[in-house]
Amino acid sequence: MKRLFGLIMVVALGCCFVLFERESIASPSVSDATEACLTCHTSIHPGMVADWRKSLHAQVSPEEALKKDPMSRRISAEEVPEDLAKTVVGCAECHMLNSEKHKDTFEHNGFTVHLVVTPEDCSTCHPVEVKQYGKNLMSHAAVNLDNNPVYRHLADSANGVQTFENGKLTLRPPDEETNADSCFYCHGTEVKVRGLKSRETNMGKMEFPILSGWPNQGVGRINPDGSKGSCAACHTRHQFSIEMARKPHTCSECHKGPDVPAYGVYEVSKHGNIYSSLNKGWDFKEVPWRIGKDFTAPTCAVCHVSLTVDEANEIISERTHQMNDRNAWRLMGLIYGHAHPKSPNTSLIKNKAGLPLPTELTGEPVSMFLIDAKEQEKRNAAMQKVCLACHSESWVTGQFVRFENTLKTTNEMTLTATKIMLEAWNKGVAKGLAQNDSIFNEAIEKKWVEQWLFYANSTRFASAMAGADYGVFANGRWTLSKNLQEMMDWLEFKLQGLKVQELQTTKEKPKARKP
Amino acid sequence: MKRLFGLIMVVALGCCFVLFERESIASPSVSDATEACLTCHTSIHPGMVADWRKSLHAQVSPEEALKKDPMSRRISAEEVPEDLAKTVVGCAECHMLNSEKHKDTFEHNGFTVHLVVTPEDCSTCHPVEVKQYGKNLMSHAAVNLDNNPVYRHLADSANGVQTFENGKLTLRPPDEETNADSCFYCHGTEVKVRGLKSRETNMGKMEFPILSGWPNQGVGRINPDGSKGSCAACHTRHQFSIEMARKPHTCSECHKGPDVPAYGVYEVSKHGNIYSSLNKGWDFKEVPWRIGKDFTAPTCAVCHVSLTVDEANEIISERTHQMNDRNAWRLMGLIYGHAHPKSPNTSLIKNKAGLPLPTELTGEPVSMFLIDAKEQEKRNAAMQKVCLACHSESWVTGQFVRFENTLKTTNEMTLTATKIMLEAWNKGVAKGLAQNDSIFNEAIEKKWVEQWLFYANSTRFASAMAGADYGVFANGRWTLSKNLQEMMDWLEFKLQGLKVQELQTTKEKPKARKP
Amino acid sequence: MKRLFGLIMVVALGCCFVLFERESIASPSVSDATEACLTCHTSIHPGMVADWRKSLHAQVSPEEALKKDPMSRRISAEEVPEDLAKTVVGCAECHMLNSEKHKDTFEHNGFTVHLVVTPEDCSTCHPVEVKQYGKNLMSHAAVNLDNNPVYRHLADSANGVQTFENGKLTLRPPDEETNADSCFYCHGTEVKVRGLKSRETNMGKMEFPILSGWPNQGVGRINPDGSKGSCAACHTRHQFSIEMARKPHTCSECHKGPDVPAYGVYEVSKHGNIYSSLNKGWDFKEVPWRIGKDFTAPTCAVCHVSLTVDEANEIISERTHQMNDRNAWRLMGLIYGHAHPKSPNTSLIKNKAGLPLPTELTGEPVSMFLIDAKEQEKRNAAMQKVCLACHSESWVTGQFVRFENTLKTTNEMTLTATKIMLEAWNKGVAKGLAQNDSIFNEAIEKKWVEQWLFYANSTRFASAMAGADYGVFANGRWTLSKNLQEMMDWLEFKLQGLKVQELQTTKEKPKARKP
Repeated sequence: MKRLFGLIMVVALGCCFVLFERESIASPSVSDATEACLTCHTSIHPGMVADWRKSLHAQVSPEEALKKDPMSRRISAEEVPEDLAKTVVGCAECHMLNSEKHKDTFEHNGFTVHLVVTPEDCSTCHPVEVKQYGKNLMSHAAVNLDNNPVYRHLADSANGVQTFENGKLTLRPPDEETNADSCFYCHGTEVKVRGLKSRETNMGKMEFPILSGWPNQGVGRINPDGSKGSCAACHTRHQFSIEMARKPHTCSECHKGPDVPAYGVYEVSKHGNIYSSLNKGWDFKEVPWRIGKDFTAPTCAVCHVSLTVDEANEIISERTHQMNDRNAWRLMGLIYGHAHPKSPNTSLIKNKAGLPLPTELTGEPVSMFLIDAKEQEKRNAAMQKVCLACHSESWVTGQFVRFENTLKTTNEMTLTATKIMLEAWNKGVAKGLAQNDSIFNEAIEKKWVEQWLFYANSTRFASAMAGADYGVFANGRWTLSKNLQEMMDWLEFKLQGLKVQELQTTKEKPKARKP
Repeated sequence: MKRLFGLIMVVALGCCFVLFERESIASPSVSDATEACLTCHTSIHPGMVADWRKSLHAQVSPEEALKKDPMSRRISAEEVPEDLAKTVVGCAECHMLNSEKHKDTFEHNGFTVHLVVTPEDCSTCHPVEVKQYGKNLMSHAAVNLDNNPVYRHLADSANGVQTFENGKLTLRPPDEETNADSCFYCHGTEVKVRGLKSRETNMGKMEFPILSGWPNQGVGRINPDGSKGSCAACHTRHQFSIEMARKPHTCSECHKGPDVPAYGVYEVSKHGNIYSSLNKGWDFKEVPWRIGKDFTAPTCAVCHVSLTVDEANEIISERTHQMNDRNAWRLMGLIYGHAHPKSPNTSLIKNKAGLPLPTELTGEPVSMFLIDAKEQEKRNAAMQKVCLACHSESWVTGQFVRFENTLKTTNEMTLTATKIMLEAWNKGVAKGLAQNDSIFNEAIEKKWVEQWLFYANSTRFASAMAGADYGVFANGRWTLSKNLQEMMDWLEFKLQGLKVQELQTTKEKPKARKP
Repeated sequence: MKRLFGLIMVVALGCCFVLFERESIASPSVSDATEACLTCHTSIHPGMVADWRKSLHAQVSPEEALKKDPMSRRISAEEVPEDLAKTVVGCAECHMLNSEKHKDTFEHNGFTVHLVVTPEDCSTCHPVEVKQYGKNLMSHAAVNLDNNPVYRHLADSANGVQTFENGKLTLRPPDEETNADSCFYCHGTEVKVRGLKSRETNMGKMEFPILSGWPNQGVGRINPDGSKGSCAACHTRHQFSIEMARKPHTCSECHKGPDVPAYGVYEVSKHGNIYSSLNKGWDFKEVPWRIGKDFTAPTCAVCHVSLTVDEANEIISERTHQMNDRNAWRLMGLIYGHAHPKSPNTSLIKNKAGLPLPTELTGEPVSMFLIDAKEQEKRNAAMQKVCLACHSESWVTGQFVRFENTLKTTNEMTLTATKIMLEAWNKGVAKGLAQNDSIFNEAIEKKWVEQWLFYANSTRFASAMAGADYGVFANGRWTLSKNLQEMMDWLEFKLQGLKVQELQTTKEKPKARKP
């Protein structure tokens, strides 16, 4: 009878196992320091703690994580410091790491903690990813914008406050909070410690650091320990769910606007359609990620980041956090689509005209700073390996030929807009480089910006990711073409103004000459 | 052996219970009147009936609902009329309630029924919610638009039909159907009974009321019983699913356009990303709603409506249907962002210039009609309590400082646009208030509207809800800035026209003077 | 004891059955030819093969499919060729069908295969659907665009490359790749065989056809066997999931842009909200599809395509692949909303002015090519039968009255725009039909296009599908109205230019006359 009962329990437990497998992992211990944190913070920030409890960090110790076979492992360190190895990764494990390097470190209830956890901290267990990310343009998103006078002018012209007095507009440069709420929200702020502030709490008076540039989780954030980036941009605190990082919504936080409409394009692509329609049955947690088995269409991560394998566990693509190492071209025209920069630090680039741009104003690439054809070929091959997992060679070849043609024609349409703007500068109806004026502050210049930043970019993304509907009427070829007419009309209107002025002058002159 | 079989059955049933728990509620009885409705309507409107069968209304009687502990209860009445208490809430229970107050009541197959179920009807079981909703701006959305001459002019200028004759445009005011299909679709129509109409049915000839302003489920609908609002706007008929009301798609029905882009902003915010990526594992039905346990990121309802608790069942925020009582500021600029109005009836407001607007045309708030700093502080504290469930104090403080800065700068950018428009009025190239002309019908006025209604609003929502990508290029700061240039060019073009006219006149005059 | 164990196994298996039911179908055999394909392609294209394995094609043989009762059947052939009947539908079954008709047929490892599977191929098992689809405008989407000089001009003006030389813009007609990447991506390319190409593979050197117009899966694709269309546009390869075809994301691939914003409208409609909030609990695979039971709100397919029944299995609407046979009106204004064309081949249409348009330039319908009032009534009745499954008669009637009013007013607003453009042509400030110039290349003409293609269309779709938020400010009535002002200003600006020119001329003339 006992055996029978045992058997029944086996069946019952088996059923439960099927139902609850994911949650059945026995929890290893929490460190004393983290236990201390949780004592108060569970009630102060219940959502934060509950979110963390759902994370793998809360369920597996680094020591256990290292026991997994290398392909399935989610940590890339060969070994982990002994004092961190045996407990789960809790509050204290991250917020007390490398305290000495952190300017935001402070004494808190007997512990030495810091507020901002940085890639440098994460690299204790994830060194390979952090190193790769350092080669990613994203890690330099803040400095590349901040140190580039051309881009800063563009940002200032959008973010500054304009006032109207005596018939004229005047631009007041944007304040720090506005910048942090705009471009640098995604690019990353510089987080600085401004001092300490005393505050009444449930535990009595306590001191906390005052941070500027906070909150922020931009991809190129400059951190109080001097490091660059924020892993939390994609690996959302405090669950750090791989499922979430692999879903396209994460990328959409920064890549949906008309300047980089990758997500908007994905949504109307066949890939996006399959994802939206069928993803509820996919497995977003498996490592390595099995093409066809775990999912049947790519998300952003599949093509640009994840370690993917076929059914025989053969690697299709290696995991990368450089992300652009399967991209031959940088679609996002600054000002033209061009080969990817060699270095993630684009503020080093200077074109022949002395501008910090990867192409001349008339489109010629500044080749010495950009990857060469051989490297492009290598990257295309790496990307196409992913495509070929589901598509025939003729399909893939055709797609790439078509895309490169679109890159060429959208660059041509940008050049045309540039030429109209140059004409406006030459005719003296707008002020540009020669006049040492911002090239972003007049109406025709803003139309020029939209030509490449919105319309050429949208058309290129629509082509690259096969979401054609986005590249026709919604900010695509239609607008690319219409905008040129509007630039021409603006030019005509201003030239007309010159004529009227001339007529008025000559009307006055004869009178003067008469006597 | 029997005991053994019993044991097995327990195990098996246990498994089934885990799988089917939600549907295992024993159904209480349906009233005779509802039974009569169902006899025909199950085959006439199968979708409607099937939808209702999935509702809690169809599964629980008010008497049973009252037995739940107060925190978990979904009805707020202390007691329910005896004739309604013991059966489920079916067709008859709602469509036969308060017949005497309903102008749309008619005799139907021996029953006295009305078509339009109203908040007044719902308040039989849900009085607290209906009362709170009465203090919500939304409940007055129809009358606030209809009774405000400025807003009506704006609506007419958009909805009217324009015709072109003899080189001029003429505006024909919009007809009733157009208004119902446009602004009043969300704001709510006035539903009136126009008479009775006889119609052939399966049951022979029958008479039904003819309604105007129908169909409609706008938030401020004026109902045939004189009440305001439609609970079905959010609690969609006939399932009235709390899951649906708590999901952001419901709010998106009216809050996605460029005028109030709350949903668009939410989608690209970290909160929206977490929702989109992970919500399939959340519990949207639990009452009270447990932060961290049932969900790990806010939907619209979490911050603005729902009763939320922490893991210890301590209340984090009370349920409210006033919805703006955690909002210190009214973001949606009419014309500037400003402190929330005291009364939901905004048609009472008059500014110094005599216009029914909460600010002067130049931005100064009409303080006597708006909540004061103390009430704002109270509302901010209530909202921040929700934020603090997942974020640190420094994060939350930083977010609010940044948002209030954005409120200020977007108001400044609106003021600049206003000044350009005033200049156009003063120079006589556009007609405005002084000329007793619509302030919405000329191109520069429409650009002015877009400055506050689209671009300043979008920037503010993006800031408030931390969906920055929406506030930069997509209708955000970039357009806020570009639009000013375009307004200036329009002004220049019109002034140029004056000069040309003058040149033509002086060309004629000399000839006249010559003799 | 054995019986006991057996009993336990029954319970356990029962549980498993509940969990895995969908996958428990016993697999019939795969043909030898398909087995041969799989030998290599499983490792060459793992995603493609894994996707197919999830399809019904891979699980059911046509013979078994024919055993289902007619209502539940997914194939419409009365019988299937014997050589196809007994195995599942694998690679060989489709890619080796009708080889003799296929210009893309080639010898491949001992087999005669073709790359492009066409509706003609699919009709072997699905003849009724293919025949219906032939009557659908979509099947003619490529030829209707390609053979219509007016539409081609529109396409060329958007897709062509413009260059700026000597102060003027010149348009270079679009190349083939650009067209395939733009309009014809959705409309369908013409897929042609350009020759054979030798390529090194794992199996040694092999020859493959070179295709132009490839990749493509546009709805009106012109195939190498002469047939029109691509079933894969909606029935995505290689899973061919009915769930996916029934979800709105599929339609959004081509119907989201500002020209046909059906999906954007759906998203903010009550229907779209219910779908987004509650669809995870719906059954998208059941055939016939039970309203109320399997789903509680319509997707695109419910109203336009699917076979739906009520709870008693009574048919509410028949399956159709003509899709427009429940649509009385063609909303997508070309140039005005109008009754649907009789023939899917719209290139036959000629209006009184000799243009291939379904209305005159001033809106009058070209009735002889369009369905008559009786047919419209029939289609409205068919559509309303779907509406009535969930809505009362007064609701549905009101909705249709309102929609037809919107159709009328948006046509009026289009006519006004047309009249302004005609004025521009007449006054000589733009060149149009009389001057034998493109009617799409000047700024005012592009504004005119947006009036009907974007704003009037959006307003109509918003009205028809009750997603009002899309039809007010987002490309709706607001823009419809604002655009007219901008067209007027453009006209004024150009007329001003004429005046300035005249002033300059008369200034010169007197001088000439003086002596």
